[in-house]
Amino acid sequence: MNPTSAPVFSAAATAAPALFSRFRAVREQTEALCRPLLPEDTVVQPVIDVSPPKWHLAHTTWFFETFLLREYLPGYAVYHPDFAFLFNSYYNSLGSRVNRADRGTLSRPPLQEVYAYRAFVDKHMEQLLALQDTLPAAFQELFELGLQHEQQHQELLATDIKYILSTSPLAPAYLPTPALPAFSQPAPPVSWLPVTGGVHRIGFDGEGFCFDNEQAPHDTYVADFELQNRLVTNAEYLAFMEAGGYRDFRYWLGEGWELVQQQGWEAPLYWVLRDGQWHRFSHHGLVAVNMAAPVTHISFYEADAYAHWRGCRLPTEQEWEIAARQFGAAPTGTFLESALYDPQPLPPDAPADQCHQLLGDAWEWTYSAYHPYPGYQRAAGALGEYNGKFMLNQLVLRGGSCATPESHIRLTYRNFFHADKRWQFTGIRLAR
Amino acid sequence: MNPTSAPVFSAAATAAPALFSRFRAVREQTEALCRPLLPEDTVVQPVIDVSPPKWHLAHTTWFFETFLLREYLPGYAVYHPDFAFLFNSYYNSLGSRVNRADRGTLSRPPLQEVYAYRAFVDKHMEQLLALQDTLPAAFQELFELGLQHEQQHQELLATDIKYILSTSPLAPAYLPTPALPAFSQPAPPVSWLPVTGGVHRIGFDGEGFCFDNEQAPHDTYVADFELQNRLVTNAEYLAFMEAGGYRDFRYWLGEGWELVQQQGWEAPLYWVLRDGQWHRFSHHGLVAVNMAAPVTHISFYEADAYAHWRGCRLPTEQEWEIAARQFGAAPTGTFLESALYDPQPLPPDAPADQCHQLLGDAWEWTYSAYHPYPGYQRAAGALGEYNGKFMLNQLVLRGGSCATPESHIRLTYRNFFHADKRWQFTGIRLAR
Amino acid sequence: MNPTSAPVFSAAATAAPALFSRFRAVREQTEALCRPLLPEDTVVQPVIDVSPPKWHLAHTTWFFETFLLREYLPGYAVYHPDFAFLFNSYYNSLGSRVNRADRGTLSRPPLQEVYAYRAFVDKHMEQLLALQDTLPAAFQELFELGLQHEQQHQELLATDIKYILSTSPLAPAYLPTPALPAFSQPAPPVSWLPVTGGVHRIGFDGEGFCFDNEQAPHDTYVADFELQNRLVTNAEYLAFMEAGGYRDFRYWLGEGWELVQQQGWEAPLYWVLRDGQWHRFSHHGLVAVNMAAPVTHISFYEADAYAHWRGCRLPTEQEWEIAARQFGAAPTGTFLESALYDPQPLPPDAPADQCHQLLGDAWEWTYSAYHPYPGYQRAAGALGEYNGKFMLNQLVLRGGSCATPESHIRLTYRNFFHADKRWQFTGIRLAR
Amino acid sequence: MNPTSAPVFSAAATAAPALFSRFRAVREQTEALCRPLLPEDTVVQPVIDVSPPKWHLAHTTWFFETFLLREYLPGYAVYHPDFAFLFNSYYNSLGSRVNRADRGTLSRPPLQEVYAYRAFVDKHMEQLLALQDTLPAAFQELFELGLQHEQQHQELLATDIKYILSTSPLAPAYLPTPALPAFSQPAPPVSWLPVTGGVHRIGFDGEGFCFDNEQAPHDTYVADFELQNRLVTNAEYLAFMEAGGYRDFRYWLGEGWELVQQQGWEAPLYWVLRDGQWHRFSHHGLVAVNMAAPVTHISFYEADAYAHWRGCRLPTEQEWEIAARQFGAAPTGTFLESALYDPQPLPPDAPADQCHQLLGDAWEWTYSAYHPYPGYQRAAGALGEYNGKFMLNQLVLRGGSCATPESHIRLTYRNFFHADKRWQFTGIRLAR
Repeated sequence: MNPTSAPVFSAAATAAPALFSRFRAVREQTEALCRPLLPEDTVVQPVIDVSPPKWHLAHTTWFFETFLLREYLPGYAVYHPDFAFLFNSYYNSLGSRVNRADRGTLSRPPLQEVYAYRAFVDKHMEQLLALQDTLPAAFQELFELGLQHEQQHQELLATDIKYILSTSPLAPAYLPTPALPAFSQPAPPVSWLPVTGGVHRIGFDGEGFCFDNEQAPHDTYVADFELQNRLVTNAEYLAFMEAGGYRDFRYWLGEGWELVQQQGWEAPLYWVLRDGQWHRFSHHGLVAVNMAAPVTHISFYEADAYAHWRGCRLPTEQEWEIAARQFGAAPTGTFLESALYDPQPLPPDAPADQCHQLLGDAWEWTYSAYHPYPGYQRAAGALGEYNGKFMLNQLVLRGGSCATPESHIRLTYRNFFHADKRWQFTGIRLAR
Repeated sequence: MNPTSAPVFSAAATAAPALFSRFRAVREQTEALCRPLLPEDTVVQPVIDVSPPKWHLAHTTWFFETFLLREYLPGYAVYHPDFAFLFNSYYNSLGSRVNRADRGTLSRPPLQEVYAYRAFVDKHMEQLLALQDTLPAAFQELFELGLQHEQQHQELLATDIKYILSTSPLAPAYLPTPALPAFSQPAPPVSWLPVTGGVHRIGFDGEGFCFDNEQAPHDTYVADFELQNRLVTNAEYLAFMEAGGYRDFRYWLGEGWELVQQQGWEAPLYWVLRDGQWHRFSHHGLVAVNMAAPVTHISFYEADAYAHWRGCRLPTEQEWEIAARQFGAAPTGTFLESALYDPQPLPPDAPADQCHQLLGDAWEWTYSAYHPYPGYQRAAGALGEYNGKFMLNQLVLRGGSCATPESHIRLTYRNFFHADKRWQFTGIRLAR
Repeated sequence: MNPTSAPVFSAAATAAPALFSRFRAVREQTEALCRPLLPEDTVVQPVIDVSPPKWHLAHTTWFFETFLLREYLPGYAVYHPDFAFLFNSYYNSLGSRVNRADRGTLSRPPLQEVYAYRAFVDKHMEQLLALQDTLPAAFQELFELGLQHEQQHQELLATDIKYILSTSPLAPAYLPTPALPAFSQPAPPVSWLPVTGGVHRIGFDGEGFCFDNEQAPHDTYVADFELQNRLVTNAEYLAFMEAGGYRDFRYWLGEGWELVQQQGWEAPLYWVLRDGQWHRFSHHGLVAVNMAAPVTHISFYEADAYAHWRGCRLPTEQEWEIAARQFGAAPTGTFLESALYDPQPLPPDAPADQCHQLLGDAWEWTYSAYHPYPGYQRAAGALGEYNGKFMLNQLVLRGGSCATPESHIRLTYRNFFHADKRWQFTGIRLAR
Repeated sequence: MNPTSAPVFSAAATAAPALFSRFRAVREQTEALCRPLLPEDTVVQPVIDVSPPKWHLAHTTWFFETFLLREYLPGYAVYHPDFAFLFNSYYNSLGSRVNRADRGTLSRPPLQEVYAYRAFVDKHMEQLLALQDTLPAAFQELFELGLQHEQQHQELLATDIKYILSTSPLAPAYLPTPALPAFSQPAPPVSWLPVTGGVHRIGFDGEGFCFDNEQAPHDTYVADFELQNRLVTNAEYLAFMEAGGYRDFRYWLGEGWELVQQQGWEAPLYWVLRDGQWHRFSHHGLVAVNMAAPVTHISFYEADAYAHWRGCRLPTEQEWEIAARQFGAAPTGTFLESALYDPQPLPPDAPADQCHQLLGDAWEWTYSAYHPYPGYQRAAGALGEYNGKFMLNQLVLRGGSCATPESHIRLTYRNFFHADKRWQFTGIRLAR
């Protein structure tokens, strides 16, 4: 998900060893994601959206160093004076930095030094957490934010790694192919779940952590609507392709149609036709497209064109959240921890009256602009840049994906990307 | 305004001579706008957003020819077979056309021939209107749309002409300076008008014409809010400038801050400093900035940054319409017919408890994405491209401007532009 | 030709009335070229290479005003203080100016005012020439340069007007089609004229005017070679096209091959296929290609690829001048004064042992970089920018074209363009 | 040097073990150059001119595989079918390939596999060389070309590595700083060596290998001239900088002046001002500029502007070679084998009547376009693309540099780069 949502602070106090244990678990997850990579894989940036894995490893570390160690650990000296320039992402408050487009030109510091940097910061974080009883409440909030921030980058690592490996004609596998049940069975037919309109409350109002962009809870009005009970499958999307969907301007927004022509889009990202059969590049190399699985790696424009072709539409984020609160999230979603790195097909016997795949599997494009909720205020200081300054010209996605850590997602979570982006695990659920 | 909103059809039947008289009045207004121009002025396109006046004159004519004469006038032969290629704006349904960026490279057909084309079409329109009793209801709807479409281009003509003349260091005046009262008095202090929240109905539900993007009327929920009773003035905006507003990233959206730096923005479009005093290029050449008048020619980014600096925000389009319906539009707005081409200052004694300048003077940026209203459907055929395909990545503006024909605007009117556009008469009204 | 060659000064003294008469003749030639144009035609700049005719009319006038009237006419006040900004072409010495790419965005001053500017300057030039006996020798040199400069712009006017009118699908004719003999006869077979190598003297060493880039006369060594006795014809070039010349990278320089693919070149500029027959846009609208006429409007890359395909090569400029001095220039070339605006076919009985079309008809690409001759020095002051600063990355063309004034060309004349340019009357003569 | 000069074939026959020993020595030199690098350093491409070291390692190997093993070793099967796509540089004859700009996006195959590829090819080359008595003469010529080609890439490796490491603010050293004599002494004063003009013979006419662009030997005429007896020093160039050379358009070619302004050039590439003293990034990290050493990393534009400022000029390549043949090359040049990677200062007692630094130290820009010599013919087949297709819009450089293998350079060697390139070891020697 987009690593740019500032926190709302409500984490409960916990003992220092437990805190450090949680800290280590999150940090270890990041490193585990990078372990199958070669040093060469951690440096490149084939397109501006994709950051080098080495950069993610260092940037998340710089975040703890900058917002926690420098603020709260007495006598802390930064690991290297140039790392703020190298690993600041977009905080104007924290000074100048490498242009985003140039992240892939920097071979130094090498991967091993980035790991040394991580170890250095981790060691000092352990010292800092031992002092936690003496620290103000703000510390705990920032600590939680640091963890959530690193989880956001775990999803980006999963998707950036996929993109990086995909650029090679060698189609290298990130991981060996998992032993999965053969997918010979089609997905169950879609059903439409009705939602009664009216004034509903949305936004985060629970315990624990949320980002500031989920605040404050507020009322909103929607009319009656229906929502599909599962994600759109590859088979359904292929029908759109075969019906000439990519060649008929009538289904497309104007900007989308221009992109289709300029980029020569005729299928989701990563799809290639081999010997008359559609394959796709995956974390396990090139594999046949599983027609029962949810379609993913499509832009908002493609999601919207598909909806038009079906005579339906995409939901708004308000509709999505209201429906999700009503139906509850089924516990069967696919998350990062599964190490499957692909949205999974629904069992053929999945109940037609339940709403499936709301959390996990694939982010769901909504036809809602990523704008501030009523009453939203940017925080003061550098963290005020975490979120608010991105609230224009992007669309909200909901529900998390197969690359989202399960402990990171919730029904009120607002992810956001520009309409043309395809390298995230993005999917479609229709409304009408 | 952006000439891209397809019609909803509810015009009442009228006798043919009256129809033609109204037709001629609209057509004449367009030509009157171009009368002060030289042939040279009607050809150039200094930036892609600005179309040559000659193109506007021809394109509006092509619209009547294509959607009315070719459909309904028996035996009608088009004026010239290449004009569809030359003067189609963006209708994929109607075939290929000159690239938008190349409109300013075409010296031919010359202005005189474009006027001949107008006369040819007008003459045939008179013949067609004489047949109106025999024509289906759809004809009348298209006729109304043709008039409204031409009115949209009248506003664009006014703003494009201004831009075209502004590129010359000679700062030529489009018109002689009007005799206006000296503007020695400051604007009245702003007051905040409270609006009670709840579920309100918005969208067009009246008699007569509206564009399809104003449909259908529907309920929406807003919380309590307050709205300023007048537009932000040049004096108020200058205070933002002098407080360093253009140099402090904290007030800006990320994309806006990049633009400020790339483009070197430090004032509204057309402002220049001469001998220590701010002037602006206007339809009357270079004139001193009237500090009591509404600020105009600012992008959404500037409007939003100004609001941040004030500790306020921009309204949503829902809030704007709910407030406007509650307060009513004062009758004193400045419209195209005034031939003033500038938003006018409010009298110092304007009542503090009224909402001024809602219609006319300057389009008001809202913090609402230009998305479809609930239940919106694109029309079939070419007119389905009029509007719906633009419903992404633009922002809604409300209320019309000093370049909008008075008969063209209403409280439900949804204009839309990208956030960086500055050449329209755009202004600011704050909410909180 | 490229208006960028500073003068060498050797004009003989002449009486003032005769001088003014010559001045008027050159000035009138320029205006005659623009007379068939509409004001709209004089404003646009469809590509950066092409300047608006209005700009040419004003720039040549500014040249006389700046270098002669301001220097030598006592009490002269410039016509308008902003015209130096508007009509300076590229003289850094003379201050800032409109970006070249923006010349086509300026509708003002209008054409009529540019003519008024011309009349104003002409009137003062008459006054100045009346004083000529009192003026230093440098005056006469600058006067001659002003005339030659204006003649250079006459050629550019002819080619820029052609390009401007060509952008319209209406294919408007600049002039009615001239009554020419039917071109039913093929061109005579080409013959190869031998030239004996050795040390030869080249460069301008005669009486009268030359540009500084033709100086100084100097020795050069060439080996024995042969040169074709006429220009390559359209028929011969079409054979290259039909043999797949535009689809085989082996004939092309690397940069040329990239251009062929990016631009989709498959014929000379202005050629279009209509009903299976090649036509070309001309000053007389769209006409069938005369296969006996010299090919023109080809880039250096195309000339060089054609030569490769023939197993020949392009001559160097040294070879061209040595041959031209040996064979002499036949008097039958086509020049601007003919108002034909097309290179003309050679009579079928043109003698095989003469060298035809050396002067006039089409500029001949040489495989010589436009570099300074030995001993070349830039002049001091603004005129030092006339020429020397362009001496890199361009190629020399020789011999003048059908758009060159006959009194302007000579065998030592060095014209120069970048290898990709096609809008001049450029042609091919092979060597081996 | 630019790896694009096809061979002329005159290598004498040698016994197979000696051939393989020479082969191994060249191959080992390449690997030795890469040994100080980390895997991360071998992947990136910070600008399009710079290729990843991993690519150089593989491309030179692909060259032997493609032109020798596939042609001459019976039964040879390529190492990997995708490597031709990945490691073909620019041979259209050999099919499609990775865009040059995308070389730095490919993390795979990893460095270790590229070394395995090298070992695989080397092993088969040993087998092939054992068969040499049975191979045609063309084999030996291609073998020699493969070695010379790899030496060209050694120079590129040295300069590309420098550029890659320079992009990091960490300024990492490629090698520890060598123990060099302190450079406290200024360079000896320059002296001018006279050369008598006339017809001279240039071009390769000796024994052994040369590239086809050095062929054929031919006569050329030059006038009398003088040449500086050593390269321009940093101290001399600094005087130009301090005299405002980078701020005065009069010294510059037009395109050069535009670059100065666009790029903000104010010193050679790699120079930075630290605490008021000029430093430069080098293979040994950031070091103080040695004022006695030759200036390097300057574009042709800077070399030419410097010459103008001095009232001199750059030599032509004809002048350079004629002078070099007359004076002979002093044996003291600095080459790749020294592992110094910087042009070295001349001893203060270097004789004033000798011509120093002709070979090695820094490539010398000439004011000669890289065009074919008289009678030049492209070879048939893929190797015809080695050289000829680049013969436009580049300038000839002579003499080799501190990054050129000593066994690779000679007086007739023609290197070539575009006028704006600065990342090679380029320097200045003046003529007059």
